[in-house]
Formats: sequence, C-alpha cells, structure tokens
Amino acid sequence: MQVYDAPLRDMRFVLNELHQDDGFGDLPALAEFTPDLTDAVLEEAARFAREVLLPINRSGDEEGCHIDNGIVRTPAGFREAYSAFREGGWTALAADPEWGGQGLPETVNKLVEEMICGANISFGLYPGLTHGATTAIESHAADELKQAYLPKMVSGEWTGTMCLTEAHCGTDLGLLRTKAVPQANGSYRITGSKIFISAGDHDLTENIIHLVLARLPDAPRGVKGISLFLVPKYLPGADGTPGQANGVSCANIEHKMGLKASATCQMNFEDSTGWLVGAPNKGMEAMFTMMNTERVSVGVQGLGVGEAAYQAAVWYARERIQGRSLSGPKRPDLAADPIIVHPDVRRMLMTMRAYNEGCRAVGNWVSRAIDAERHSEDAEVRQHAADFVALMTPVVKALFTDYGFETANLAVQTYGGHGYIRESGVEQYARDARITMIYEGTNGIQALDLVGRKLPANMGRLLRTFFHPVSAFIEENGGEGPLKRMVEGLQQAFGALQLSTAKIAEKGMKDPEEAAAAATDYLRLLGLVAMGYCFAKAAKIAAAKLAEGGDDAAFYQAKIATAAFFFDRILPQTSACFLAIKAGKKSMMGLDEAAF
Amino acid sequence: MQVYDAPLRDMRFVLNELHQDDGFGDLPALAEFTPDLTDAVLEEAARFAREVLLPINRSGDEEGCHIDNGIVRTPAGFREAYSAFREGGWTALAADPEWGGQGLPETVNKLVEEMICGANISFGLYPGLTHGATTAIESHAADELKQAYLPKMVSGEWTGTMCLTEAHCGTDLGLLRTKAVPQANGSYRITGSKIFISAGDHDLTENIIHLVLARLPDAPRGVKGISLFLVPKYLPGADGTPGQANGVSCANIEHKMGLKASATCQMNFEDSTGWLVGAPNKGMEAMFTMMNTERVSVGVQGLGVGEAAYQAAVWYARERIQGRSLSGPKRPDLAADPIIVHPDVRRMLMTMRAYNEGCRAVGNWVSRAIDAERHSEDAEVRQHAADFVALMTPVVKALFTDYGFETANLAVQTYGGHGYIRESGVEQYARDARITMIYEGTNGIQALDLVGRKLPANMGRLLRTFFHPVSAFIEENGGEGPLKRMVEGLQQAFGALQLSTAKIAEKGMKDPEEAAAAATDYLRLLGLVAMGYCFAKAAKIAAAKLAEGGDDAAFYQAKIATAAFFFDRILPQTSACFLAIKAGKKSMMGLDEAAF
Repeated sequence: MQVYDAPLRDMRFVLNELHQDDGFGDLPALAEFTPDLTDAVLEEAARFAREVLLPINRSGDEEGCHIDNGIVRTPAGFREAYSAFREGGWTALAADPEWGGQGLPETVNKLVEEMICGANISFGLYPGLTHGATTAIESHAADELKQAYLPKMVSGEWTGTMCLTEAHCGTDLGLLRTKAVPQANGSYRITGSKIFISAGDHDLTENIIHLVLARLPDAPRGVKGISLFLVPKYLPGADGTPGQANGVSCANIEHKMGLKASATCQMNFEDSTGWLVGAPNKGMEAMFTMMNTERVSVGVQGLGVGEAAYQAAVWYARERIQGRSLSGPKRPDLAADPIIVHPDVRRMLMTMRAYNEGCRAVGNWVSRAIDAERHSEDAEVRQHAADFVALMTPVVKALFTDYGFETANLAVQTYGGHGYIRESGVEQYARDARITMIYEGTNGIQALDLVGRKLPANMGRLLRTFFHPVSAFIEENGGEGPLKRMVEGLQQAFGALQLSTAKIAEKGMKDPEEAAAAATDYLRLLGLVAMGYCFAKAAKIAAAKLAEGGDDAAFYQAKIATAAFFFDRILPQTSACFLAIKAGKKSMMGLDEAAF
Repeated sequence: MQVYDAPLRDMRFVLNELHQDDGFGDLPALAEFTPDLTDAVLEEAARFAREVLLPINRSGDEEGCHIDNGIVRTPAGFREAYSAFREGGWTALAADPEWGGQGLPETVNKLVEEMICGANISFGLYPGLTHGATTAIESHAADELKQAYLPKMVSGEWTGTMCLTEAHCGTDLGLLRTKAVPQANGSYRITGSKIFISAGDHDLTENIIHLVLARLPDAPRGVKGISLFLVPKYLPGADGTPGQANGVSCANIEHKMGLKASATCQMNFEDSTGWLVGAPNKGMEAMFTMMNTERVSVGVQGLGVGEAAYQAAVWYARERIQGRSLSGPKRPDLAADPIIVHPDVRRMLMTMRAYNEGCRAVGNWVSRAIDAERHSEDAEVRQHAADFVALMTPVVKALFTDYGFETANLAVQTYGGHGYIRESGVEQYARDARITMIYEGTNGIQALDLVGRKLPANMGRLLRTFFHPVSAFIEENGGEGPLKRMVEGLQQAFGALQLSTAKIAEKGMKDPEEAAAAATDYLRLLGLVAMGYCFAKAAKIAAAKLAEGGDDAAFYQAKIATAAFFFDRILPQTSACFLAIKAGKKSMMGLDEAAF
C-alpha cells in the first residue's frame, strides 16, 4: 500500500534545531520566514502531497503517458493536480520575488520538494525541471528574455525543460550536434534532436520553454563550442500569450522502467527560433547553473521516494502477521505476531530509517549553505557557503539516490512476495527511484566530479569547509555518556576519510586514473562521515532536550535510537570503502580489455 | 541489447579443473559422464539458450502472460520453445533414468540451468518448478503415483508446481487453511486457494501436476498439521492421458515487477481430487525436499541473470563512446573513447565479473556435494556431502540472488540513461532478478535458516565441512608470489568468520534474537569467504597452468586478474559485516515499536 505522511517532526528538527551552529550565520534577508511561517508552509505542503499527489501516484504508474497524434497526454488526474499545484502557489515557492516568486529559503523549499517526490516523483518532474530552467534564465539571460518568460514560468503558467542529451551523447556533451544559425534579428534557428527530455511535452500547460544546448556555425569543437538557447514551444505574440508554433515537436515518448507518469520525450527542433542565453560558446557554464541546482534536487527525490518506501514498509510490518517473536509471543490474541517483531525485519526498517534521517539532515545542512551563498551579507560567508555547496552537490546527488534505491528495495523485501506484485505499490518505488542514480549525471560521474574537480579545486579549500566542522565537533565532544561511542565511531571514520584524501591527492597527482579508481568509494565514505556527523550532533541535541524534559521525549529518544543504529550498523560500511580506496587502480584496470 | 553466450570456458573450468580435490572422491555412478560428453551437453545447451530462448526473452517481457476466459496464454514463441526444449530432452536432463531421465550430474545440470535463466529466466520457471515437484514425488510418493506421473513429468509432457503460499501466509505456513478431506477410495478432496503459483496454469502442456500443502480434518495446529497432496489439473484416464477436469482453476494471474512471461497464478481448488504424498501431517518434510532443491536453483537463476547482465554491459561499454581515457586517447580514430576505458566503468564491469565467477565457482562446489550425497558409495562421504549441501543451500540462494540483482543494476548503471529505457533490455534484468531475492524463502529467511538451524545442527558439524577445507587451504598456501596476498586476505576474512561464529554461538545460546540479529551479515560473510576460497584456489590453479604453458593463457591470466580484483575490492565487504555482527541486537531492537 502506498501511504505517505510527510515526516514533519523530523523536518522541523533538521530545519530549526540541528544546524543552528553551522557557521553560516544569520540571514537577515530571510528573517521574515519565522518557524511559525515555515511550519505553516510545511503543513500545507504535507496536506497537498497526501491529498492531491499521493492518490494519483500508482494510477499514474499504471496508465503512464501516451502520445496521440503528436500530443503528449499525462495520466488521469495530472492536469487537475497541476492546476491545483499552480493555484496553490507551489511553483513560485523558492523563486525570486522579482519574478513573482515567494523567495522562500532553500531549507524549506527542499523539504517541500522531498514531500512532492515522496508522494509522486513523476509529478515532481514537471515543476522540478522548470525550477532548473528559471534558475539558468535568471542567472544568464538578457533582461528582455527574463521579462518575457520568467513571470509565466514562476507562476507555473508555462513549464521549462533542459535539452542536453542527444542519442549519441549524454555525459560527453562535447559530441553534440544540434545546430544554431544566427539570424539578422538577433535570434537563432535551432535544428537538431534531443532525447531523454523530461517534461519535453505534455498537456499540463499551454506553453513549454526549452533550454537547448547547440553549436554555433563557427563554434570550436568539443565542450568549448556549446551555447545555450531558449526555445519556446510556441512563440509568444505581442500580448505575451503563446502564438505561432515554433517547429518544436515530440517525436516519441520513452518506455521506461519507472517514472511512467513523467513524459520523457524525444524532441525535434526544426528551424526553431531561439535566443541565446549567456555568452556564445559558454553554454556549459549556464548549463551547470541548472545542473547543480537540479543535482541537489535529484538527491532529494531519492530521499523522498525512500521515505515513502519506509512508511509503506512500516505499515506492512505492523499489518502482516507471520511467525512468533523469538522472545515469546507478542500478540497472543492473533494467530501470529506482526513481522515487525522479527530482528531481520527490524534490521531492514532501521536501515531505511537511518538512511532517510541521515540524508535529510545532510540535505538540510547543504540547503542552509545554498541560502547563505545567496543571502549572506558577509562576502566571506558567501564564499565559504559556495565552497561547501560545490563540494557537497555530487555527494547529495549520489549518496541520497543510492540509498533511496536501496531503501525502496528494502521495502520490497519487507513485503516479501507481495512486494513484487504491482498492486502493493512498493515495487513502483524501486523502479521510480532507479532513475535518480542515473539522470543529471550518473552517480559515477558525481564521484568523478567530487574527486577530480572538487577536491583539487583551490588547493583543497572546498574540502576544508567540511573537515573543519567535523573535526571541531569531534574535539569538543570526546566526553562521556552515550555520545562517547558515537564520537569514537565518527572519529575513526573521519580518520579513514583523511587518510583516503591524502592518498588520493598523492596518487592522483601523478596518475589521474588512480583518483578515478577511488572515486565511488571516496564519495560514499565522505557521505557516511557527513551522515555520522549529523547523527552525532542530533543525538547530542536530543540528549540535551531529554535532560530538559518536555513533551517531545518520544521523538528525541527515537532520534538517539536511530543514531545508535547508524553507528552500529551503517557507518561500518566506511571500513570497506577505505580498504577499496587503499587498493588503488591496479586490479581495477588490470584485466586486458579484450578479455572481458 | 540482450546478448547471451553461455560462459563455456569458465563453466568448464569450474567443472573440470577447480574442485578436483574437494574431498567428495570419485563417483563411479557418474563415470560415464566424461568431460567430452558433458562438454557436448554444455555446448548444445548454450546453443539452445542463445538461439531459442534468448530471442523471446524481451518480447516475452513486453507481452507478458494473459488470461482469457480462464485460460492462461504464454507470450508468443513460448509454446514453440517449450516443445523444442522437450523434444531436445532438456526436461529429462537431471532426472532419474528409472523415470526416463538422463541422470546427468548435478554439476552439469546446474550449469545448464544457469544458461536457461541467463537467456530467459521466465521460461526457466516452467520446467524449473517441475524439477522440484518430481523430486518430491520421487522421494515421498507411493509407487503407483510415481508410475502414473513421473514419466510424463520427466519427459516434459506435463509440468509441475509447488502450491504452498496462501494470501495470508507465506513464510509462516503453519497458518495455512486449504483443506483435504479423505475419501473412501484412498484419495482426498482438496479445497482452498493458493497464491503466487509459478506456472500454475499455462498453455505449454496438456496437464499440470500440482503439489499442494493442505490440512487433514484432524490435523494438529501449525506446521505439524500440514500434509502434501498431488493434485492434477486433469485426472488421468485409464490410458494415462488427461481426462476429466479436476476442479482446479486459475482465478487470476499476478501483475508483477518482472518475470512477466512466467505465469504467476492464483489457483483455486474446489473439491479437487488429490493423493497424499508422504505421510499424513509430514507435508513440511516433503515440501522441504522440493524447497531445498529449488533454493539452490534459485541461486543459480540469480547468477544466470547476472551473467547475462554482465555480457550486456560489456557489449555496451565497448560500443558506447563518451569522453577520453584519463591516460590519453585510446581510440583517436573515433570522436571519443569507448567507455570501457574509464576506471569507474571498469569498477562496475569487474565487480559484476567477480560476482559471477565467484558464485559460479561456489555453486559448482555445492553441486559436486549434491552429486556425492546422491551417488557416493561411501556412507561417510554421503553424510559429509549432505552436511555441506545443507549448510550451503541458504548461502547459495541468498548470496547469488543478492549479487545477481546488484549485477543487473550495475549493468543498468553502465548503460546510463539508456539503461532505464525498456528497449535496452537491461532494466528487465533488474526487474527479473529482483524476485529471486524473495521467492523460495526470502533472503532474510535463508539467513535465519543458516544461523538458527544449520549452525547449531549436530553441534556445529555442518559448519566443519566448510571450515576444514578453507583452513587447510590457508595453511598449505601461506607461501609466496601473487597468491600470498590473496591467502592473507582470505585468512583475515576467515578469522572474522570464526570470531563471528563463536560470538553468535555464545550469545545466541542465551538469546535467539542475538543470533537472528546477526543472520544476514553472517550469511554474507560466510558467502564471501566461500568465494574468496574459490578465487584463491582458482588463481593457484591458473598460475600453475600458466607456468606449464599452453594455448589458454588468456583465460588463466583473466582468472588471476579477476581474483585479484575480488580480494582488493569485494572481500573488504567482510569488514563491514564483521563490525555489524559484533554490534549485536541492542540498537537493532532498541527503537520502541510505536516510534516507527
């Protein structure tokens, strides 16, 4: 069964309690967003997710998208849900007030994104890509393009896309072939084919604004010859409403493993009119503006699906009776005990829980930095925050989505045979979550970004934004009590991370393949240390709150219990990562290519 | 793309080279199956898999099974393929010659099973379940039932099923409700509903023989009151051909995540005539005869899909060009290098390869024991082999299927976005492999079987059949050369396994929940040590062969390279398992049930 209630208590915890001392300081620009206000937003979003988006999640998966005579149809209920979403102002949540947005902090916005994707990730893609596109337009487009497009995109009247991939190139965009020919009036004619375009076409809005990577006629080869263009499905007329068709068509929609209610389109551009966004041949920069925003969001998608999967598994583990507890019957009134009494079921539920809570805590930490990067009045803080965001973006993307998929699969496993049946709703989570490990740069690419770009950047400056708070926390909390073991565990894992970093820096300098061979394990190791840091902090805060007394004891006790499980059962993954990194590239690259 | 060529060279290696000194001795009963003969069987099976089963694998997934007016239709081509399979004598391969079987060694049969499931796991279920059913009939049924049913099941004229699960009970069969009422003529009237019945109904054969668990009227409660019955779809007439319908109907077929060409049926029995198999109330024993056979086969299914996924990934990694090698362009003639040059792609391919080769080696070791258990002339060897099979059955089932699913997902990841598209064929492997972790007892149940039943059985006697050869190998091969590091790695992992075993024995004696809390990590740890042992042995043999010279150097070099990767990158998983086991149950069971 699909059940989804946004985990509001934990969301309030990460938002208002966990990261208050994160060094990003106060942000007066966001002072109006008091806990009371953000709480009201979260509650309303939770209601919307549960009441509007969840009910069309499984039906959307069954029905999928269809293309009739070139028109893409979303599944039943999606048009109505999108209208309600737009009318509720949700598309404008995090956008700049200059364009009609509400300017909500990213810390809150990312929690709302988690809810949307927890209830219905396929739905989330329609407004989600728009957000990336508006960010790129805001940052790089000429003013008149902003005026013409941003208000309608922020209001949700129109949606946006990112048209990067072509059939023969995804990761290596240097190979792309779509052409842009300049016209006398300053516009360009765009011609080419793009694949895997999320929300490339649909029936939710009357116009769709494509951001398209293409080559100018005189462009240098490779990634240095790529430019970004804004290409609307319909050219706005003088009154700003969609007018003439612009040679943009959806040739096909993909048949996918999951995410079926999201239309993934093959888009053809035939002499379509477009306008340059940013400087000629600087498309990759503008593209990365979208991409980095999207990468954090994709991580949050993985977490959202993971939370939904966890809730479904808990529901089933309480409902399903099978066998008796090894410590004696717990429900003698029933023919058997609910399976939640069994240790191996607990193992699965606790693992899911620890992944979700750990990722949520790390995610909010990064969101705080995104806000500080944008809004801090202190240039040093802005730089510090930007460094941290740059460092953690690939970690959030890859770690959260790996764990989101693992969590979804643990939910399937908790259901046993019933989990393999579509009616259960949980196998959909596994199929839906699977894409998050791939799109916006595969998780392998994220790891290479971390190790190849982020670690060496500015002589390791980015990494220090992470190492400093972790080592400070370890120094300050060596102490006593239940926290002691956690800090010891964290210290050990952090030591492994420091050693690994040194090893990669040393070996990678001489041989970049050595760094690449360590990348995936290093990202996992760093991500686990980040989770461990957040869990130890959370346990410390929870212990303090419990000592104070108050009526929320159950929440804080559960937080400590989940943290204890994390240190016992999840953090040990770091030892395998460390040994794998230590092994180097030799055996990874040792097999002759012909021998595979 | 789906490509599948049975890995014949590696199959011959595990069959004829790797396990010659395994202590199970010669089996004169199987002497006729010379390497020449088994080689011919393997080659012919490989051809059948590639030419007949592979071409209908993806189309079968797309079309699925359908139920029309109560008649289950398999996808296009399945009827023809099954006829060819039957005519080729494949259904009779491992069956007893007494019933028309060819009596092939299990070592060879399991390799053929791997091929069938590598090419088309959905197809494999139709003859696969029949094999389990005939085993139970052979072992437990009265002679006249054997005479009436076995020849036709062995010849593949009729197929068989295992009807265990009901909607409210799978793992806990003690709860089952299907009733069997004795009749004056010695038969029984069976009434009840079963779910998840693989090959429960289909259009491949004219009769289907169900083995049904049910309760006699006076049966004790729980698992001690379950009996096994043979219930044909059609009652054979005097001439042995299917006659009167027997009240057996397929109410529905399940809509599943994958395995779509295999009909998973809800079966209704309404006053169906059946015959007791084995003693009254001893159905669980007979059921476990089927189940244990099937569990090893399910492990092999996971491996089969894993091998197919690996081959697809290798094909793609050579075909797809993207980016340049970090050590300089490898294919300057192309616009980019094939992605197989990239370390992170190598990591995925080598991981898949190491899982497949490691599982194949362990699987063949267990198959040798199955043959020895059946055919050895020495009662001590038979007991020794039976102990080893009992110990390793849950390990094979859970380890191979966990890794099979992981391998399928690594193939999807290698394909990037294209892997998420159904046309690529690789996402099907992930969906198909997923069920193998669940059916015939979830992998969590396998772990409990290992830790709760197999470890304590006969004062740990079963485990010694595994510990002895591993410790002997370590002692004898401490030496020099490339093997040295492997043996050291094995020794360390084996030490962790020994410590974990002692800890579980000690704690589990006082508190069975402690053993259960360690179960999944313990199974993984034992499985990895088994793989490590096989890899170290394989590397030793390969080194000796290379020293001898000969024309197969590429194979032996690749074997050593894969073994080296296993010890560098896979075996370190044991350190995480060890730490998790050491942590005990406290944090796993610490969260209050209401707090989830």
